[in-house]
Amino acid sequence: MKTFVKDIYKTDEKYLEKEIILEGWVRNIRALKNFGFIELNDGTFFKGIQIVYSDELSNFAEIEKLHLSSSLRVKGILKPTPQGKQPFEIQATDIEVEGLSSSDYPLQKKKHTMEYLRTIAHLRPRSNTFSAVFRVRSIASYAIHKFFQERDFVYVNPPIITSSDAEGAGEMFRVSTLDYKKPPLDNEGSIDYKEDFFGKETFLTVSGQLEAEAYALSFKNIYTFGPTFRAENSNTSRHAAEFWMMEPEIAFADLKDNMNLAEKMMKYVISYVMDEAKEEMEFFNKFIDKDLLSRLENIVNSEFERITYTEAVEILKKSNKKFNYPVEWGIDLQTEHERYITEEVFKKPVFVTDYPKDIKAFYMRENDDNKTVAAMDLLVPGVGEIIGGSQREERLELLEQKIIDNGMNPEDYWWYLELRKYGGTKHAGFGLGFERLIMYITGMTNIRDVIPFPRTVNWAEF
Amino acid sequence: MKTFVKDIYKTDEKYLEKEIILEGWVRNIRALKNFGFIELNDGTFFKGIQIVYSDELSNFAEIEKLHLSSSLRVKGILKPTPQGKQPFEIQATDIEVEGLSSSDYPLQKKKHTMEYLRTIAHLRPRSNTFSAVFRVRSIASYAIHKFFQERDFVYVNPPIITSSDAEGAGEMFRVSTLDYKKPPLDNEGSIDYKEDFFGKETFLTVSGQLEAEAYALSFKNIYTFGPTFRAENSNTSRHAAEFWMMEPEIAFADLKDNMNLAEKMMKYVISYVMDEAKEEMEFFNKFIDKDLLSRLENIVNSEFERITYTEAVEILKKSNKKFNYPVEWGIDLQTEHERYITEEVFKKPVFVTDYPKDIKAFYMRENDDNKTVAAMDLLVPGVGEIIGGSQREERLELLEQKIIDNGMNPEDYWWYLELRKYGGTKHAGFGLGFERLIMYITGMTNIRDVIPFPRTVNWAEF
Repeated sequence: MKTFVKDIYKTDEKYLEKEIILEGWVRNIRALKNFGFIELNDGTFFKGIQIVYSDELSNFAEIEKLHLSSSLRVKGILKPTPQGKQPFEIQATDIEVEGLSSSDYPLQKKKHTMEYLRTIAHLRPRSNTFSAVFRVRSIASYAIHKFFQERDFVYVNPPIITSSDAEGAGEMFRVSTLDYKKPPLDNEGSIDYKEDFFGKETFLTVSGQLEAEAYALSFKNIYTFGPTFRAENSNTSRHAAEFWMMEPEIAFADLKDNMNLAEKMMKYVISYVMDEAKEEMEFFNKFIDKDLLSRLENIVNSEFERITYTEAVEILKKSNKKFNYPVEWGIDLQTEHERYITEEVFKKPVFVTDYPKDIKAFYMRENDDNKTVAAMDLLVPGVGEIIGGSQREERLELLEQKIIDNGMNPEDYWWYLELRKYGGTKHAGFGLGFERLIMYITGMTNIRDVIPFPRTVNWAEF
Repeated sequence: MKTFVKDIYKTDEKYLEKEIILEGWVRNIRALKNFGFIELNDGTFFKGIQIVYSDELSNFAEIEKLHLSSSLRVKGILKPTPQGKQPFEIQATDIEVEGLSSSDYPLQKKKHTMEYLRTIAHLRPRSNTFSAVFRVRSIASYAIHKFFQERDFVYVNPPIITSSDAEGAGEMFRVSTLDYKKPPLDNEGSIDYKEDFFGKETFLTVSGQLEAEAYALSFKNIYTFGPTFRAENSNTSRHAAEFWMMEPEIAFADLKDNMNLAEKMMKYVISYVMDEAKEEMEFFNKFIDKDLLSRLENIVNSEFERITYTEAVEILKKSNKKFNYPVEWGIDLQTEHERYITEEVFKKPVFVTDYPKDIKAFYMRENDDNKTVAAMDLLVPGVGEIIGGSQREERLELLEQKIIDNGMNPEDYWWYLELRKYGGTKHAGFGLGFERLIMYITGMTNIRDVIPFPRTVNWAEF
């Protein structure tokens, strides 16, 4: 019977001493005199399975010369191997070669640099590290959907192509079908975007939050999960031009509800991945980051701390620690500050709330002190900030003034303002950069290594 | 206790005669002399719940003047109403107004045209039709993830920004950060894309299939589900510039496996939505399309027919039916042909396979007759084509020749070709336009009405 390697590992009793058929790729091959071993990986499971073949096979000569990554159809008996490293192996009765490989296969059995592996992004998921990373990425995506859907949140797809800048921060990619060589001009000699595909200037979205708010004010609890873009010229290990973001938005909810949701979600997703990708997580803990599992267990089991920005600043000032960026009330916290608070002071995840309004976005709700806004950042050990969110300004006049104060035009936000005019209510939400979460869960340190085909400054290969 | 309208409908015994708190929006209000009725919708459920209020409330005067869509916090007792249209109502003991609305609220209780509702896309999910559409969209998204994840398919996010044209069909949006007014030129006076953000010309993806194949040849079974783009100047009810596509790709699999997967998936997703969105589906069946539920049940319960293109052409020729596009072997089937086959001949979904190679994409596997390729389209009553797929050409030399014959440069496809060089295997996959599926499931006839904020020619509002 045709089966998957995963099924054999999960319920081997069912298959022991039976004839089974497996289809997969040669991860390793060792040819001895009259027999040999193949480690076959079929992609369904982190581990492969050992195939024993002998010169009783009619195509023995072909088999023993196979190159890595050849694809095979193996028929054989699953045998227990009580003395072996693995609990079973397959004694092949027939091996059919589906597709040959070649001696110049770029993913040989040796240590490759991460940089090199990025140049073979079409093959790297065949390595242990990247098969683990991208299976975890898939499982974590599903955990996010599962968490929200089981709580009746409505999944919303905000537009990717947009004419508004949700963050008011610039750094957007232009989307256009105009001819760059001869763009149409208007009477004043400016580019005439009325002639462009959408009849106006358009960009790739940096966040679906504003549209998400419209849906939260219809469905109460919603979430988005999709690609977002930043045309930021940052060549760092933590910035990509294209990344996935998850943004829940909840109505009739304040900052406390928002933190409760973020805490529950983080714990759920991490637990789910630890349960569903045990082999992959053990691999990361062994080869990528020896503290990984204990750090993640700490997150799942601890009650997240909650402090205000003002308290955080006091802690930092009292610390007598020398920071590169000196601490004063009003500054934006830097990674060194965030990591000190979460790693050295509390040794667990910490929500920092109520930031100075001048360093936060226009849509955040102003507190009664007129100095701070109902913002929250979640800081976690090993990374610093992983989630950013806020209660949104629901008071029409205040929001309108904020837009004006930020040098934006209220007319561009007419529909966003209308959400406050027609049955507005307190509401809140947050954003989680999905790749940052995957880096956190896997211990991988470069964002390029948790995206199948990353896009960064000067890099859009494949 | 604070609760959701959904919970009350699902387990009303738990709440009857109890004091509960609900938060939601006024969908309807009827003020009589000393009392009145409010239909409160909290977004968690298609139906609202009736609130009875009386002049015993201290803010009775405020309540009876509320405009549609005001947001409220209602405290009251859930009472059974054996004579009523609904099984229960809430006798309010306290109503707190969270957010007022206004007499110019644009979504008044009257019939609006779909065109008008598109101009208030931020408010239309508060209407019955669109709350149903977008909840179904969310549930169907989840059904797709659930179907594949429960079968251990790995979810892959192929890049949105790309330098290759997967379909070889053109009509792509350019993505750039160059200054349109003064683009950098190279020595020959052409735009110097080396100066652009990615150091090369880039576009929005039309399909993640090629990248998906790389992952299927690592993980065996994978799927993608994300936004794709077409800069097509088609102002029809079925074309959007931005839409979501779902593309599974399976290795060690042929066209028959591909059809089996598509059939199972379609049945699963439709059944799941019919189970999980009963109220919404009844609404569509009553107000949008009276044949909807019977058509969907027919899909779930029938075994899909499978015929070849050549057989389809024979059937069409023998039909004596007058088509706008005359039928000859070699033509691409038009919607009128597809609908005749699925609606009038078989009266159920039909896979048509093995199309002439000249009308299909370069990557489809050539059949032994040298005339056709192992392609499949799924035709369904009421729509025509809803899924397109194929077995992929896994033979290196043949694929390379096909690329050349199509006027493309094999060097641009070096990594795609390498997938055939290093342990290639037969593999197959298909694409499902998610919005077309939602139109099919809901009976909505315009793609603009199943996308929260649609993007079409000359339209990128919100």
